[in-house]
Amino acid sequence: MKITIIGAGSSYTPELIEGLIARCDSLRVDEIALVDIESGRYKLEIIEAFSKRMITRSGLEIRISSGMDRKAALTGSSYVITQIRVGGLAAREIDEKIPTEYGVLGQETTGAGGMAKALRTIPVILDIAHEMEALCPQAWLINFTNPSGIVTEAVHKYSDIHCLGLCNAPMNMQRTLAANLKLGPEDVAVKYIGLNHLSWISRIWVRGQDLTDELFAQQNFIDQVASILGDEPVNKKIVSGNKLIPSYYLKYFYHPARQIRDDKQALADGSGTRAVQVEHVEKELFELYALETTDTKPEQLSKRGGAWYSEAALSLIESLESTTGGMHIVNVLNQGAISDLPTACVVETNCFVDRSGVRPLAAGALPAEISGFVHTIKGYEQLVIEAAVRGSRDHALAAMLLNPLIADADIAQPLLDALLEAHKLYLPAFF
Amino acid sequence: MKITIIGAGSSYTPELIEGLIARCDSLRVDEIALVDIESGRYKLEIIEAFSKRMITRSGLEIRISSGMDRKAALTGSSYVITQIRVGGLAAREIDEKIPTEYGVLGQETTGAGGMAKALRTIPVILDIAHEMEALCPQAWLINFTNPSGIVTEAVHKYSDIHCLGLCNAPMNMQRTLAANLKLGPEDVAVKYIGLNHLSWISRIWVRGQDLTDELFAQQNFIDQVASILGDEPVNKKIVSGNKLIPSYYLKYFYHPARQIRDDKQALADGSGTRAVQVEHVEKELFELYALETTDTKPEQLSKRGGAWYSEAALSLIESLESTTGGMHIVNVLNQGAISDLPTACVVETNCFVDRSGVRPLAAGALPAEISGFVHTIKGYEQLVIEAAVRGSRDHALAAMLLNPLIADADIAQPLLDALLEAHKLYLPAFF
Amino acid sequence: MKITIIGAGSSYTPELIEGLIARCDSLRVDEIALVDIESGRYKLEIIEAFSKRMITRSGLEIRISSGMDRKAALTGSSYVITQIRVGGLAAREIDEKIPTEYGVLGQETTGAGGMAKALRTIPVILDIAHEMEALCPQAWLINFTNPSGIVTEAVHKYSDIHCLGLCNAPMNMQRTLAANLKLGPEDVAVKYIGLNHLSWISRIWVRGQDLTDELFAQQNFIDQVASILGDEPVNKKIVSGNKLIPSYYLKYFYHPARQIRDDKQALADGSGTRAVQVEHVEKELFELYALETTDTKPEQLSKRGGAWYSEAALSLIESLESTTGGMHIVNVLNQGAISDLPTACVVETNCFVDRSGVRPLAAGALPAEISGFVHTIKGYEQLVIEAAVRGSRDHALAAMLLNPLIADADIAQPLLDALLEAHKLYLPAFF
Amino acid sequence: MKITIIGAGSSYTPELIEGLIARCDSLRVDEIALVDIESGRYKLEIIEAFSKRMITRSGLEIRISSGMDRKAALTGSSYVITQIRVGGLAAREIDEKIPTEYGVLGQETTGAGGMAKALRTIPVILDIAHEMEALCPQAWLINFTNPSGIVTEAVHKYSDIHCLGLCNAPMNMQRTLAANLKLGPEDVAVKYIGLNHLSWISRIWVRGQDLTDELFAQQNFIDQVASILGDEPVNKKIVSGNKLIPSYYLKYFYHPARQIRDDKQALADGSGTRAVQVEHVEKELFELYALETTDTKPEQLSKRGGAWYSEAALSLIESLESTTGGMHIVNVLNQGAISDLPTACVVETNCFVDRSGVRPLAAGALPAEISGFVHTIKGYEQLVIEAAVRGSRDHALAAMLLNPLIADADIAQPLLDALLEAHKLYLPAFF
Repeated sequence: MKITIIGAGSSYTPELIEGLIARCDSLRVDEIALVDIESGRYKLEIIEAFSKRMITRSGLEIRISSGMDRKAALTGSSYVITQIRVGGLAAREIDEKIPTEYGVLGQETTGAGGMAKALRTIPVILDIAHEMEALCPQAWLINFTNPSGIVTEAVHKYSDIHCLGLCNAPMNMQRTLAANLKLGPEDVAVKYIGLNHLSWISRIWVRGQDLTDELFAQQNFIDQVASILGDEPVNKKIVSGNKLIPSYYLKYFYHPARQIRDDKQALADGSGTRAVQVEHVEKELFELYALETTDTKPEQLSKRGGAWYSEAALSLIESLESTTGGMHIVNVLNQGAISDLPTACVVETNCFVDRSGVRPLAAGALPAEISGFVHTIKGYEQLVIEAAVRGSRDHALAAMLLNPLIADADIAQPLLDALLEAHKLYLPAFF
Repeated sequence: MKITIIGAGSSYTPELIEGLIARCDSLRVDEIALVDIESGRYKLEIIEAFSKRMITRSGLEIRISSGMDRKAALTGSSYVITQIRVGGLAAREIDEKIPTEYGVLGQETTGAGGMAKALRTIPVILDIAHEMEALCPQAWLINFTNPSGIVTEAVHKYSDIHCLGLCNAPMNMQRTLAANLKLGPEDVAVKYIGLNHLSWISRIWVRGQDLTDELFAQQNFIDQVASILGDEPVNKKIVSGNKLIPSYYLKYFYHPARQIRDDKQALADGSGTRAVQVEHVEKELFELYALETTDTKPEQLSKRGGAWYSEAALSLIESLESTTGGMHIVNVLNQGAISDLPTACVVETNCFVDRSGVRPLAAGALPAEISGFVHTIKGYEQLVIEAAVRGSRDHALAAMLLNPLIADADIAQPLLDALLEAHKLYLPAFF
Repeated sequence: MKITIIGAGSSYTPELIEGLIARCDSLRVDEIALVDIESGRYKLEIIEAFSKRMITRSGLEIRISSGMDRKAALTGSSYVITQIRVGGLAAREIDEKIPTEYGVLGQETTGAGGMAKALRTIPVILDIAHEMEALCPQAWLINFTNPSGIVTEAVHKYSDIHCLGLCNAPMNMQRTLAANLKLGPEDVAVKYIGLNHLSWISRIWVRGQDLTDELFAQQNFIDQVASILGDEPVNKKIVSGNKLIPSYYLKYFYHPARQIRDDKQALADGSGTRAVQVEHVEKELFELYALETTDTKPEQLSKRGGAWYSEAALSLIESLESTTGGMHIVNVLNQGAISDLPTACVVETNCFVDRSGVRPLAAGALPAEISGFVHTIKGYEQLVIEAAVRGSRDHALAAMLLNPLIADADIAQPLLDALLEAHKLYLPAFF
Repeated sequence: MKITIIGAGSSYTPELIEGLIARCDSLRVDEIALVDIESGRYKLEIIEAFSKRMITRSGLEIRISSGMDRKAALTGSSYVITQIRVGGLAAREIDEKIPTEYGVLGQETTGAGGMAKALRTIPVILDIAHEMEALCPQAWLINFTNPSGIVTEAVHKYSDIHCLGLCNAPMNMQRTLAANLKLGPEDVAVKYIGLNHLSWISRIWVRGQDLTDELFAQQNFIDQVASILGDEPVNKKIVSGNKLIPSYYLKYFYHPARQIRDDKQALADGSGTRAVQVEHVEKELFELYALETTDTKPEQLSKRGGAWYSEAALSLIESLESTTGGMHIVNVLNQGAISDLPTACVVETNCFVDRSGVRPLAAGALPAEISGFVHTIKGYEQLVIEAAVRGSRDHALAAMLLNPLIADADIAQPLLDALLEAHKLYLPAFF
């Protein structure tokens, strides 16, 4: 079995390598192909060397190959993991900065920043998908690149390749919930519905018993859940009204003005965008990775965010290799699972996964409290995909008007022009 | 046949009387009962006297009764027209002023202002509906009170009375379209979809031919349609992208910041809210109405807004009396007409109306460009109804968070408290 | 305005001519083009001469043209009425005889006979539709040819032409209901749902009041309705259980064995199939039509069946010419009107018709008692269309297995072979 | 953990005991409670003694309790398995004989026989469900009693107890398919859709690859599948048209006349109904069970039918006890899984099962070839449930008219009366 990692120069790669080593019994990996682009050569070479030290330490017979030749890497692959960042952290900084200047949220996955990222990313991922059709048509594309739901839907719409979108948020939410309840992760099961970064836990089973109603009747549970959205007391009312556990990203939708104020402040006082902060962490990490003596994942990686990244990806691959299967929360074609969303859109929800593929569990209709919200963002996402594929400013503008984090034509129009201009290099379809 | 007008002290009433006189052949009205509340006695008496002069001038045998006894007026009615304003223009001024102070739109039908109006109005209209169940169970409640769609849905949810929500916007939009095309109103037919004050014309037939595609291919047609949303050039892109004719109220959703800026300016420079302006027009109108010599509808009424108000109501009643029926655009129980909205919600769309009732035409699914939007506002509306009926601040807060014209918890929470406090007198369920 | 009648040699044509004369004020017809095929020349010439005498008698200026040149007739038409019978009464006799021999129902619109008729008819009607696309693309095809629902769906699936399927059954059912209630036809309004020849009245308004529940609570009403299905006492239980007024054709579905027994008896005792009986009536009619002295529709035509045929067609055309429109029950694209049937299938239900076209009224989901039934027959219909278009025996067999009037593979297979062989001449796609 | 078996005097019970012993590691059973009614005392005592010998031989510490006190047995149960036969084999004989006399299918799960069985069974199972609500509200009711889908839907409609309907047919179909493909059972995964005894495999994965299209393109595969329906050549056409693997019970629907002929023959020549044959097998089995020397399941049990009965039940319980879960094909509340069937009906389809419960996988809409069929039978099933619960002859008659295996009012009415009369003792609600 060959696993190909595209965007392998990412600081996350060692976590994947570590996970593959840990699961060597169930996943008999023969080769890991690391791929990146020329501008990532420096990082890739560090990762390659570090990975080889990890493998050597493990005593396993896994071959590490590495390079810029994506087609060679794809050939014969069983799994292709994409963790690319088109335009790198420099582009992310633009995604975070320009919207803030226009008074709307700059965030790399939601709002205007996330849209710009999607516009840059979709064409590249579609190129990869089309290469896979020719070079490894039976392989699975496991997409980690954000905004993961939109990108995955684009692949499903424009390619026949097997594709899943993966995010560490669902596992994070389930583990955090278990920890809050002072239970082990295996004690808590959840029903999970929505879209990537616009998702909720709507039912909670503790050791097999549905305790949803009991838990939401307890004020201290409400308080814990509300803190996901921030310290504001109003969050407790939101949670007690909805009786749903929101994803962390909902705080952007419930408190946009506060967030924009904070972002403006950060730009003003020189503390910089999140992209700048990540850059510092990454620099430090790569210094560690480069040391000849480093042959295990360093502690500092946890600061980078992305907890459970490796766990989510590798337990998923384990199920995709098994006959008994398992339950995972992934971005998948809806197929009627969420009954009031279109059949052919991508949703993030519980799925049964085995080697025959991925099938979402029937989730029924969305609760009234979130239905309109999800419909709106799904409409936004579909317009973004069309904008990216056609290079259409009309679709991009329509998308921005639907997104409640923008939703003002007088801002949307010049902001769109500014973002497209700033990312011109990565958006040939628009120029 | 007896027609009861509740809120008859409104400046609009003479237009209704004029219409009833004009249609005396098809609608054989025996009695018009004018009802208002004590605080509206002054206006009601002027309207009563004026109405009697109009009837006298017409030579018809229609009895005008008038008073504060709503139950007496309802008894034996065939049609009950509600045009009330709970709290009067003073309450409207609060609806327009307080949200503006909190930096969100203050408008009497959409956004926070419209929500406050709905909270005040729903309990009163439900009281009327329950009285009708006892006193005139076969009568039609034709609701003109805004927000008309929400109020109508509340009646359908909590009463079995025959009920329709009426707005002059659909007729206005169709007539304006015909005028723009330099055609007579009978030359243009439209497919109309959405919710009250969140609606679109999605298909256009000219003398029987579907010219939708041809018209949206013409730049000067795009320009005319775009001007509905205001002068901003971006509106042309919106319209050419959607290929839909938006209701005038969409400008609030596409340009909220600009509108709020204008509203703040108006408060600052002393020109006052729209409520204050309406108050001036009304004062002038009632002076005219009070003159012994006034026995026809004065020209100045047209300044008040509400064109086609009487035409919409009376042509509707004409169809409700007929065996041949006719097509009207009203607020009606969906019943599957818009296939992706709930069966039991109220939508504003084309209906076939005859004496057997009102049945919406199958409209299919909403276009992708507006579907998320409509789902969101429908979700908002349903939460507002529950908030009003239960006196629930939780539901009211959830409603505000869904509405893209508010959509920030840090604003919604204090704004809600402020609005409820200001309207305390009319919101007993909340206190 | 030019109206083209295809299959004009039918004995029904004089009824249409009479209707066109009666409505000369609303429908300003310039020309009526009569078309038939060579084998119908004798009848066509009689009809042509008779029609001219009727026009002369009326004193109107309507031109009658007549001949075999279908393309010439279609050119410039506004309405094309199809009342063809592919293979003539001889083919109908086969449709009625062969199934009876195999022990299943031989009936010209339902069951195996109706399927054979559909297989012969669909290709011819599609030829006409394709000619209309070229010669009169704005015209309406009003299809009277049975099985009207299947044929209409085939046109909608394989052509863009404006098309409606018309049947006299809905008007018959509404008039019979009114007569049973001792009311005028204008006093009774109905909600009508289902497919052509598989339809029900599901709601009844008398002078505007919904009396459905009251009527079905009366035993004598149940008895009247039950007699539609025949004299058997069980029919009263069926009707009191369903609370629906069935179409006359439902008796075939509720009493197939009895009907087959009667049909076998008729074959055995020499009284012949219904085709043979019709042939006698037709012979008598054409003798009358041919008389120089006949210039009005003769009484005997009523024996032929088809009451309200002309009324249904011409009141429909009147609405298709009007701006005010009217309500008609026709075979129309579903578009969500019956919410649990596919969007793109043809249903028979209430529609609003004006010169902008035909839009079904939202009817909601089918009642549970008939839902499975209608789904089954719709599945059958769709397979028949595919069988006809592709000349596919597999689809034809699958259709027969779905139809509860056949529904046995050991009968279906040889019966299908026998029917195709017998109609070989008219089924080139299968050979 | 306590497992209660109701109807424990069944000849199947030893298979369950054997399975529980085999899975002693995963399922730590403390007690097995065997329950039956007075008339089954003889068999129950044999089963009790035999079960105790099996446990003794295994060396496990499982307590066997046995008796007529159902409430005592239910108290404290974790799983309740129902395998009752109301009226015993004598009633089954009536179900098979009377319909045959009326010329329609007599079969214990489909057609008129299955309906009579449902009418007798539903009240008894609802009694058990209501006792469970009080005595073991967290327990699972695993219903094996036929018609399993109808009975399970009745429980879901009239009780809140956790309930699943189980049938050995799905496992049989999957194993037979694997054997036909000369593969191990773990090599073949299937998508399974429909209702109990009206079901199909619609997709086939071999070692993770979707080979559905490839297999149905092979004539020898078609031939194998067709033989499920019997030897008639037409079955090959049915299968090649549908591209679905039918359940064995479909042969009744495709070849009813042939089956009825065979049944009549069997009655005439004295070979008796299937009930009589089963009686012989059972007699022989109980003689073996009664031997002091018998302490393992005898070979002869396989003749009884019901292969995989124990495997299906116990692997399901294993998943219901686990955190990792597994995929099972069971009768479950639809919840949108089959998108064109009602949300609240019971379907038989793939489910993910773990200790948090049972959730069906999203299956999308039914294929057109079977959709009408399934809708019809679901309509029939829902009428049967209402008939049973209300004791309503109207609903029972309507059910018979919908079922294509009866579908003639002249037969249905007297047949219904005859069946109700024959089973009077077990149908108090009807008398």
